[in-house]
Amino acid sequence: MGSPRPRAVVLVSGGVDSATTLAILRGQGFDCYALSVDYGQRHRAELDAAARIAKTLGALDHRVVRVDLSAFGGSALTDGALAVPVAGPQPDSIPVTYVPARNTVLLGLALAYAEVTGAGDIGFGANAVDYSGYPDCRPQFVEAFEALANIATKSAVEGRPMRIHAPLMQMSKAQIVREGARLGIDYSMTVSCYQADDAGRACGACDACRLRRAGFLGAGLADPTRYFATSV
Amino acid sequence: MGSPRPRAVVLVSGGVDSATTLAILRGQGFDCYALSVDYGQRHRAELDAAARIAKTLGALDHRVVRVDLSAFGGSALTDGALAVPVAGPQPDSIPVTYVPARNTVLLGLALAYAEVTGAGDIGFGANAVDYSGYPDCRPQFVEAFEALANIATKSAVEGRPMRIHAPLMQMSKAQIVREGARLGIDYSMTVSCYQADDAGRACGACDACRLRRAGFLGAGLADPTRYFATSV
Repeated sequence: MGSPRPRAVVLVSGGVDSATTLAILRGQGFDCYALSVDYGQRHRAELDAAARIAKTLGALDHRVVRVDLSAFGGSALTDGALAVPVAGPQPDSIPVTYVPARNTVLLGLALAYAEVTGAGDIGFGANAVDYSGYPDCRPQFVEAFEALANIATKSAVEGRPMRIHAPLMQMSKAQIVREGARLGIDYSMTVSCYQADDAGRACGACDACRLRRAGFLGAGLADPTRYFATSV
Repeated sequence: MGSPRPRAVVLVSGGVDSATTLAILRGQGFDCYALSVDYGQRHRAELDAAARIAKTLGALDHRVVRVDLSAFGGSALTDGALAVPVAGPQPDSIPVTYVPARNTVLLGLALAYAEVTGAGDIGFGANAVDYSGYPDCRPQFVEAFEALANIATKSAVEGRPMRIHAPLMQMSKAQIVREGARLGIDYSMTVSCYQADDAGRACGACDACRLRRAGFLGAGLADPTRYFATSV
């Protein structure tokens, strides 16, 4: 009998970045527990995609926790009264697709799941290059959360440190897609679009679609995305 | 017209400590927005109590957000398979009523609500004296969360700092009850018991009931708690 494999909780949204993060942590030898959070997003296709990704990439378990951030409003992703922007990124401003305190809540839930499963590691697909407008996608946010996690938990008090892995932090979308392809990910099972339809088909116009398309183009790989707009 | 009053989000659980925290922040001149989190507790009486407290103590709004921490298990408060202890506190150990990462998730949700309401302050009834076994009730936890909040949010990036108030941190239960009584709180509307019945009546035997009773006794005040066990 060898020593048990270390365990990691990985936040899996259904998109390219979190799928790649899961594949990277699996490749590093972690037994992975996938966690998806239904926070009142406008569509459910990405949760279906998350389930496919967790299973295909070998997660030992996949949990979905519902927390209704739309009760607060304030984001185009959870508030039906705000339009999803299609004009491309605006320099030096925080997009309306920013969900207040989203990653603090997501990592808090991942921390809870990590404590229960005995995991000492959390995988998180944050990226500071493409999401430069989101304060909770920056390296200093990940460092601050790791510091909090090492104070907040029973595990930490008992001497088992918690580490937050954000392996994509400084990668371009093209680099992410290339790394995922190297690890064998079939990205046709992922959904990135902010307004995908129920079948998981993408609009091709929102910021998430633009980033994703540019990533495949930059990586020199065929874009496996299914679009619902025929003009795309 | 005077300048607008500062806004604070206050986490209100339905118990003595959070009600007192709300009264203290109101007394300090904040317009208060109450937030309760339904995290899969065993009983609903405390959420009913939270609504009464928010209204009676003058909160401008009260939101309830559901997040099902019981999906993870691991705590006697959210996992039906674990018994609520009635033997009194055990020295130097973390109680089974500890909910993994609970206060990280609760403060994360308070942070989201604060961003949406434009609040720069969060009130949190953590107490390091009576809950010494809970890692996320310590002053260093509050400091670490405040540091995180000042990195994580759009508000922080735009130069509006976030402050976490935990005014009860170093108070005994007797001091808390005395302070609340001075501020006019009717504690009969609060529920502390870990296994209260649907009418909000308490068992009188669990750790939360013991602490509460000792608090009124120590403060020299009549205990307004309604108990369901006639032998108490």
